[in-house]
Amino acid sequence: MNKVLIINASARKERSQSRKLTQLFQENWKRKNPNDRFTHREVGLEAIPPVNEEWIASAFVKPSDRTTENQLGVALSDELVKEFKEHDIYVLGTPMYNWSIPSGLKAYIDQIMRINETWKFRSGKPDGDYVGLLKNKKMFILSSRGDTGYGENEKNGHMNFQTTYLKFVFGIMGVKDVTIISLDNEEFGGEIFENTKKDIYQKLQRI
Amino acid sequence: MNKVLIINASARKERSQSRKLTQLFQENWKRKNPNDRFTHREVGLEAIPPVNEEWIASAFVKPSDRTTENQLGVALSDELVKEFKEHDIYVLGTPMYNWSIPSGLKAYIDQIMRINETWKFRSGKPDGDYVGLLKNKKMFILSSRGDTGYGENEKNGHMNFQTTYLKFVFGIMGVKDVTIISLDNEEFGGEIFENTKKDIYQKLQRI
Repeated sequence: MNKVLIINASARKERSQSRKLTQLFQENWKRKNPNDRFTHREVGLEAIPPVNEEWIASAFVKPSDRTTENQLGVALSDELVKEFKEHDIYVLGTPMYNWSIPSGLKAYIDQIMRINETWKFRSGKPDGDYVGLLKNKKMFILSSRGDTGYGENEKNGHMNFQTTYLKFVFGIMGVKDVTIISLDNEEFGGEIFENTKKDIYQKLQRI
Repeated sequence: MNKVLIINASARKERSQSRKLTQLFQENWKRKNPNDRFTHREVGLEAIPPVNEEWIASAFVKPSDRTTENQLGVALSDELVKEFKEHDIYVLGTPMYNWSIPSGLKAYIDQIMRINETWKFRSGKPDGDYVGLLKNKKMFILSSRGDTGYGENEKNGHMNFQTTYLKFVFGIMGVKDVTIISLDNEEFGGEIFENTKKDIYQKLQRI
């Protein structure tokens, strides 16, 4: 039995394309893995607060040395980190906004990138050498984008600060097994988008 | 007389390194350009709301066709866009958080990236060809980072989703004249960081 964490980052609800992807993913996954359990984490519609001064002051203090104020400063972060760590499979549904990720998803990432919880410095002190503390995790990034061609060697590859960044930053935490499926072409609408959807929905069935 | 917009994105107040940079920049600039006027825009301590469903629905409707609900959906965005457009020089003070920008700065960027206001499609409809609508603007990005070596051909260049992204996204709006000054090495503290600070503070004096 695996625990699956579904993270939705879209600012849209009904009209969100990436939410539709995570929904289809869950239906398909459930059929094939009936014993797996799902948790939903919302980072788009319900704002995750940005890290603040108290957070920064607290996160770098050893847990045993934290004052009550320190503990409060990272209380939400502690919860989010705990949730993240206790799941095996991550399904991240996210649109590309201005070639990057939604601000809510960035706030979430900043909350769970916690020293000695999800990553550490190899030598134990700042050395620029980051070791991920998560092991045996799998991530599916289900993305939606207005345009297309954002693959590494494609025409818009240099404009991709979305999946490129996500793969990198979750990689720092140790999440190395990442599958990216992107529903592109939304801004063109019509037949182009309908065909792309058909193609991607089928791809999701094959996972 | 130029109008200078100082944008601060740090989650920290007193201990913020990037705020110190924008402050020193302003003092120096004022001395050399006594007639220039300054405006401050806070995107770190005071949260800029993320774009939401109503925003997305409204922004792509022609202004003359907008319902009252549509207008409300982009009211704050309209204000931020107006402020941005009426300034000549941008001074953006921002830390690197997890190799990218703070979530509040991303929320701000999403608010001011407005079709037919700050950018447009060349053909007038989705064509993947973005034309910036801002002209004759100058931007200073004053960055602070824990580590160093984030230049294009430096050891951590591939991990830079901060200034690389900022240069790119403001470039889409037409802001092409960008100077980047980064105060690095904060996480190492001690003499290394003190020397870096001395060097960068002197650099700021020479602008």
